[in-house]
Amino acid sequence: MFTIAPLPTTLIPELQQAIDTKTKPLGALGTLEKIALQIGQIQETCTPEIVAPTIVVFAGDHGIATTNKVSPYPQEVTQQMVLNFLHGGAAINVFCQQNQLDLRIVDAGVNADFEAQANLIQAKIAKGTRDYSQGPAMSMEQLENAMNQGAAIVDTLYQNGTNVIGFGEMGISNTSSAALLMSYFTNTPIADCIGRGTGLDDEGLALKIKTLSDIYVLHREKLESPLGALATFGGFEIAMMSGAMLRAAHLKMTLLIDGFIVTAALLAAHALQPNITAYCIFSHTSGEQGHLKMLNFLEATPLLNLGLRLGEGTGCALAFPIIKSSVAFLNDMATFNSAQVSSATTKNA
Amino acid sequence: MFTIAPLPTTLIPELQQAIDTKTKPLGALGTLEKIALQIGQIQETCTPEIVAPTIVVFAGDHGIATTNKVSPYPQEVTQQMVLNFLHGGAAINVFCQQNQLDLRIVDAGVNADFEAQANLIQAKIAKGTRDYSQGPAMSMEQLENAMNQGAAIVDTLYQNGTNVIGFGEMGISNTSSAALLMSYFTNTPIADCIGRGTGLDDEGLALKIKTLSDIYVLHREKLESPLGALATFGGFEIAMMSGAMLRAAHLKMTLLIDGFIVTAALLAAHALQPNITAYCIFSHTSGEQGHLKMLNFLEATPLLNLGLRLGEGTGCALAFPIIKSSVAFLNDMATFNSAQVSSATTKNA
Repeated sequence: MFTIAPLPTTLIPELQQAIDTKTKPLGALGTLEKIALQIGQIQETCTPEIVAPTIVVFAGDHGIATTNKVSPYPQEVTQQMVLNFLHGGAAINVFCQQNQLDLRIVDAGVNADFEAQANLIQAKIAKGTRDYSQGPAMSMEQLENAMNQGAAIVDTLYQNGTNVIGFGEMGISNTSSAALLMSYFTNTPIADCIGRGTGLDDEGLALKIKTLSDIYVLHREKLESPLGALATFGGFEIAMMSGAMLRAAHLKMTLLIDGFIVTAALLAAHALQPNITAYCIFSHTSGEQGHLKMLNFLEATPLLNLGLRLGEGTGCALAFPIIKSSVAFLNDMATFNSAQVSSATTKNA
Repeated sequence: MFTIAPLPTTLIPELQQAIDTKTKPLGALGTLEKIALQIGQIQETCTPEIVAPTIVVFAGDHGIATTNKVSPYPQEVTQQMVLNFLHGGAAINVFCQQNQLDLRIVDAGVNADFEAQANLIQAKIAKGTRDYSQGPAMSMEQLENAMNQGAAIVDTLYQNGTNVIGFGEMGISNTSSAALLMSYFTNTPIADCIGRGTGLDDEGLALKIKTLSDIYVLHREKLESPLGALATFGGFEIAMMSGAMLRAAHLKMTLLIDGFIVTAALLAAHALQPNITAYCIFSHTSGEQGHLKMLNFLEATPLLNLGLRLGEGTGCALAFPIIKSSVAFLNDMATFNSAQVSSATTKNA
């Protein structure tokens, strides 16, 4: 179900030729040319299209949040922000509306009940994960359920025509899950994976480092597989994203990766199916300090570096116009021939 | 006519308060928050608006191009690309259409005649500058004429309501003018200002460096003022941009700065009116090697770094959605109060 093939290479010469005959010096559109090539390869065409692009925000609560040791915000904020998403008041709403992106909110495990709404996908595994200072955040059954639900959400979007999907998240304390997963998957000392999240002060940061270091030691020796690590460190929204990502790449969709937490979900997916990154566009480098190390581990070059550290998929939504431009120049620009423009006179130009 | 006031600071506390009460952690929108603050200050309001945003592409020819010593492309390409702009086939057309930007093409001094068209502004000073290996590129009268025409173009846009203007350019060999101006205004050795432009090979680059070094030595001792340098090194499209920029900042418009050549025009404007940079948003760091040094000289932090080296205002057009997002979040996001979201529990959060 989740097998991900390497990108086909047969179209590369034809795509590169199409890019190089546009009325611009060779390579002058920089990263946009790489994205055009990548999306052309993913879609196996020299005239790729972006259809019904959608940001999916996965929300979930974390048992660790109730200890008040890792975030300055109370757990209730997850629920409150989900309502804010549903009412249209959050940053991701504003950016999706501006850039004509569809937006779906997934309740992957928020500690609250929501009334049915058009943009809300109900996929709650439980009302928050268990506190992983006491044991694994979720059972292996819950993990499988979360990943399958993520895949099913992508299937529905795919059936509606969506071929570009941006991943976003909301969950108070989920930078802690992401830091633990990062340490496990990238073999980085846990202290180097931890940042200020939504805004811890120095004292709060020290407590977060102490707390997560103890938790990492508690579990580390027992972890025997990527799935075991994902179940242990959670959360539901992260595991659901990992499943959704695997399915999206399997279906040859283009994946837009947001910041620290979304990339943690990708680290898990990547451990299972390393080819997945070929289908990913990395939207930005987060202000959360561990993110750049994650990106380096994945050999990823993100599009933006704007000091964002908000989550919600906001990096994806802000980078999206550049992705659209990459496809647009390939489809819509004139060629040297069609525009009767002289080309360069030296071999390298 | 060109006096540029420092940005008013009185609104800063109110603007910062508006930014900080949005439903997001403090500072979590990074650079977008700085842009929102800047545009709020420029427009002197906490609810800034972007009205009729327009990219203006200034085109001109350069006498030096006829020597075939500095560019792999023949001079005719300037004219051909202007026609490409007018027919809608260039990268800047595609990006402006996508991002709903108006586009105007200015003939500042192309070595060709164009028929009247809706998007073409006829402001030709002459059919190309003189070859500055023989003497100054233009007379002081031509310089004044070019700067005044640039100001008049901005006046017309301003009267039509435009309050955001992006600067772009086209002119075979104009990286050479820009390099000479950069050396003069930033006091950087000329060889460090020269790059491959549209795609010189190693041999071509070496010839360009030798040619421009000789030209710089020829003129350097005689240059007594910023205007003298601008007249000597040209080109018409650069001087016209300098005049347009000074006028736009004087009128409290927001200026979007493109790459190497546009920033060279800004260096001249900045030498005359240092306050101008407060009105500028730097859209990207060009792949042309001298650009980053120019940006450092101006203490500018650009939005994008995508290896673009195309000109035409493409960097402005690609960065524009981020600028729009900066204004949109300030106007459209909910506040913690309005969305009933709990704020952080620690002082620093």
